[in-house]
Amino acid sequence: MIRALFTAPETRWDAYSRALPPAFDALGLRVDLSRDHAPGTVDYLIYAPGGPVSDFTPFLRAKAVLCLWAGVESIVTNATLTQPLTRMVDPGLTQGMVEYVVGHTLRTHLGMDRHLFGQDGVWRDYIPPLSSERPVTLLGLGALGSACAAALATLGFPVTGWSRNPKSIPGIRTLQGAPGLRQALTGAQIVITLLPLTRDTANILNADTLSLPAPGAALINPGRGSLIDDAALLAALDSGQIGQATLDVFRTEPLPADHPFWAHPQVTVTPHIAADTRPSTASLVIAENIRRGEAGEPLLNLVDRRLGY
Amino acid sequence: MIRALFTAPETRWDAYSRALPPAFDALGLRVDLSRDHAPGTVDYLIYAPGGPVSDFTPFLRAKAVLCLWAGVESIVTNATLTQPLTRMVDPGLTQGMVEYVVGHTLRTHLGMDRHLFGQDGVWRDYIPPLSSERPVTLLGLGALGSACAAALATLGFPVTGWSRNPKSIPGIRTLQGAPGLRQALTGAQIVITLLPLTRDTANILNADTLSLPAPGAALINPGRGSLIDDAALLAALDSGQIGQATLDVFRTEPLPADHPFWAHPQVTVTPHIAADTRPSTASLVIAENIRRGEAGEPLLNLVDRRLGY
Repeated sequence: MIRALFTAPETRWDAYSRALPPAFDALGLRVDLSRDHAPGTVDYLIYAPGGPVSDFTPFLRAKAVLCLWAGVESIVTNATLTQPLTRMVDPGLTQGMVEYVVGHTLRTHLGMDRHLFGQDGVWRDYIPPLSSERPVTLLGLGALGSACAAALATLGFPVTGWSRNPKSIPGIRTLQGAPGLRQALTGAQIVITLLPLTRDTANILNADTLSLPAPGAALINPGRGSLIDDAALLAALDSGQIGQATLDVFRTEPLPADHPFWAHPQVTVTPHIAADTRPSTASLVIAENIRRGEAGEPLLNLVDRRLGY
Repeated sequence: MIRALFTAPETRWDAYSRALPPAFDALGLRVDLSRDHAPGTVDYLIYAPGGPVSDFTPFLRAKAVLCLWAGVESIVTNATLTQPLTRMVDPGLTQGMVEYVVGHTLRTHLGMDRHLFGQDGVWRDYIPPLSSERPVTLLGLGALGSACAAALATLGFPVTGWSRNPKSIPGIRTLQGAPGLRQALTGAQIVITLLPLTRDTANILNADTLSLPAPGAALINPGRGSLIDDAALLAALDSGQIGQATLDVFRTEPLPADHPFWAHPQVTVTPHIAADTRPSTASLVIAENIRRGEAGEPLLNLVDRRLGY
């Protein structure tokens, strides 16, 4: 019998205590799933930040910490964590992200807000350009960024994707490294940030880089709040260099009610909804990694502690 | 020299007088394009409703009336029109329609409005279902409907398409005829109307058929205003049977400022922007039909006067 400790915020237990057992059964795994195993007896930790475990030292025989979240920056710096760490690449999460990114890209592209906020009897004739005339740049070409880039290209947007290392995606112009970043941002009309948060990506959008997109460009950030220098963004919005920002992630969440983003007429705050892990699909990934761990096969989505993701 | 009379509202001349000549040149056609040819000398009419011509009798040698619009219901009933009539199937128009339909379907699906209108400092945690859990029904599977159905299916929505005659589209459940209509609407969470307006389709959404979708379903109408019984829609919105309506077309346009649609909190009015013909791409279609007319080949998008489209 494999002992799996579920250690995530209380609110997650209900959904996962229902979704995980059938996922284990489907792979023929006999797993004792509990929130109360003694640390020294645990084979795997099914983990999310904000739960009861912050010291991983007593989990002497644990073969892996399986994180339920895609972003692991809050755990990767935990010095007590010596076990292999995996992050979540949930097909449901990826699909939800594609829907959010494509939806808000089209909202921005079509100028929807002028109609939604203009239900006053005035017939405002405004024909947007076609998607083929609206260059979109995606920062980050991981599982999420690549899926979003492909979906936007299918809809006819000219998509440029930027990542640290060279990537090749059919139909996407890909750039990399520091000079590539400036080239990717220059002239973009919609910029979407889907990078992991690392030392290198913190504040990657700042006063300097925010000056590169086309005047009045829109920004969509469903990645991590700290990718953007908040003060620089507010200044760029006030100058008109950035015309609109849709922000789903923030340095502090929930975003405090007195944060200037809430009141800014060109900012739309959404409450960290773009990348929600879905228990039904995430449980299949957790089960597969336990199967791999038991079979001595390489784990899926293993975090490189040096890179931070 | 081929004589083409441009007869459309004044405001269209500027764009088409620039877009048509290069399209003619590309096909090697020598065309004298003017708004002032004597009727008896005209070979082709390039036409849109609302222009100077309403009596087609004097155009004795005209080989065709080439309409710039996709919807021809206002001209097809004109008894003086004896010449062949073509309607516009503009690839730019189709692309614009796909963007509008996918954009507003995602806006509805993601519950965007609750965030757009809720920028008040309150963190409203709402995770929408995935697209795979949101059945969408499209009424109409012509050039526009088929393209929208395919784009929505690519994004993961389970799409049902209904049309008068049987159609087959990969990945789409297709239904037809009167019993098929009830089946197509039953349980739908988003209903999109992209039918031509004919005797058979006028008021196709009425008190009876609006009762079939899932309670609280959303309606998106970028087709024709008269497809919907306005009073029945308002009643369905007030009862909650229909939760939201996004309407781009109306019986009277511009929609009068005192029409109840403007003030209804569950209705979004957009000003007939979904299906705008783009001069650059439409001109290529006009030129190709003139080439065909001169070569004695069948015209593209010939209107069947009996069916009305």
